[in-house]
Amino acid sequence: MPTHAAVISLSTKGRIEPVDITGDVAGAVRESGIADGIVCIATPHTTTAVYVNEPERGLLQDVVEMAGRLTELGVPLQHNRVDRNAQAHLGGILIGNSVTVPVRDGQPRLGTWQSIFFLELDGPRSRRVCVTVIGG
Amino acid sequence: MPTHAAVISLSTKGRIEPVDITGDVAGAVRESGIADGIVCIATPHTTTAVYVNEPERGLLQDVVEMAGRLTELGVPLQHNRVDRNAQAHLGGILIGNSVTVPVRDGQPRLGTWQSIFFLELDGPRSRRVCVTVIGG
Amino acid sequence: MPTHAAVISLSTKGRIEPVDITGDVAGAVRESGIADGIVCIATPHTTTAVYVNEPERGLLQDVVEMAGRLTELGVPLQHNRVDRNAQAHLGGILIGNSVTVPVRDGQPRLGTWQSIFFLELDGPRSRRVCVTVIGG
Repeated sequence: MPTHAAVISLSTKGRIEPVDITGDVAGAVRESGIADGIVCIATPHTTTAVYVNEPERGLLQDVVEMAGRLTELGVPLQHNRVDRNAQAHLGGILIGNSVTVPVRDGQPRLGTWQSIFFLELDGPRSRRVCVTVIGG
Repeated sequence: MPTHAAVISLSTKGRIEPVDITGDVAGAVRESGIADGIVCIATPHTTTAVYVNEPERGLLQDVVEMAGRLTELGVPLQHNRVDRNAQAHLGGILIGNSVTVPVRDGQPRLGTWQSIFFLELDGPRSRRVCVTVIGG
Repeated sequence: MPTHAAVISLSTKGRIEPVDITGDVAGAVRESGIADGIVCIATPHTTTAVYVNEPERGLLQDVVEMAGRLTELGVPLQHNRVDRNAQAHLGGILIGNSVTVPVRDGQPRLGTWQSIFFLELDGPRSRRVCVTVIGG
């Protein structure tokens, strides 16, 4: 049964930073030899997220702004008494730890304006992303 | 290896508009001949989203309201200098570009009150949704 | 074609309550006999969500706070005229009805701080979660 697993390693430089991993995911799909199916991109970290959207420079700044503001709930966050990154966890929960993208003809079947992003929410750090390709 | 791909085409009429695509997804699952597995529903557009919830008329208005308000960050959005739809992109990132639904006995295994929705965030436009069924 | 389906049953006690289901999901993956692939965890309810993050006690309180506040849109919600739980539906749409986790060596491939959570948003109630393992 065709399943292929790969791990992408990366280093983030900012506290909140979207990193375009489309090329790495496409490489994992190519390596898998799987022509049609799906590819699941999942982060194993709790203060990061994964999403699919446009790589336009201004939008990347807006994503950083959103990740910082949306989780300002206006009340003290309890997790900050243990570790000062509660907002990073909440951003990870809202945006999500994984995405699934169709695979067609040996490639991620993305739209014209779509790229796959790893979103650092508590950097800078060394991070990994798990890529699983399933199909035939 | 059983994988089946289909594309749903639709036209949206409003700027923000949820479109119930449950029947189309169920049709794609039926066509696939796959009895048990999962179905992945993914949008290739960056100003749309996909979600699963109730088709009650009032709730659909609330979803429209949420999509418009939640991404008003109270600061100028940078992507609006390129294209006046930054909020549509941010809504797509928050709600998500794909959902995965179990398949049982040749049907999407949805709960009593669940329907599958395509969410237009920058319409009206012609749109597509990619459906991939995997299983056996 | 290796596909394995399981249903987790649980009872929630609070109105908004995260329930750690990592052990149940790991059990379903073990039962499946599938070594490598993915596991999809999906809720069939429209006033619940599923997410992956840290089980730290303070963070669980922050998640409850976020689920309650983020969907206070500052306008009357229309679904509340039918049923007084519009915010629970909106929280389910934002956080999402399903997650996908890689499976490696017969186990969910989670990070050090990751657990899988079912999130009750309109409890207390009896609930189910659908687990589907796919791979080889």
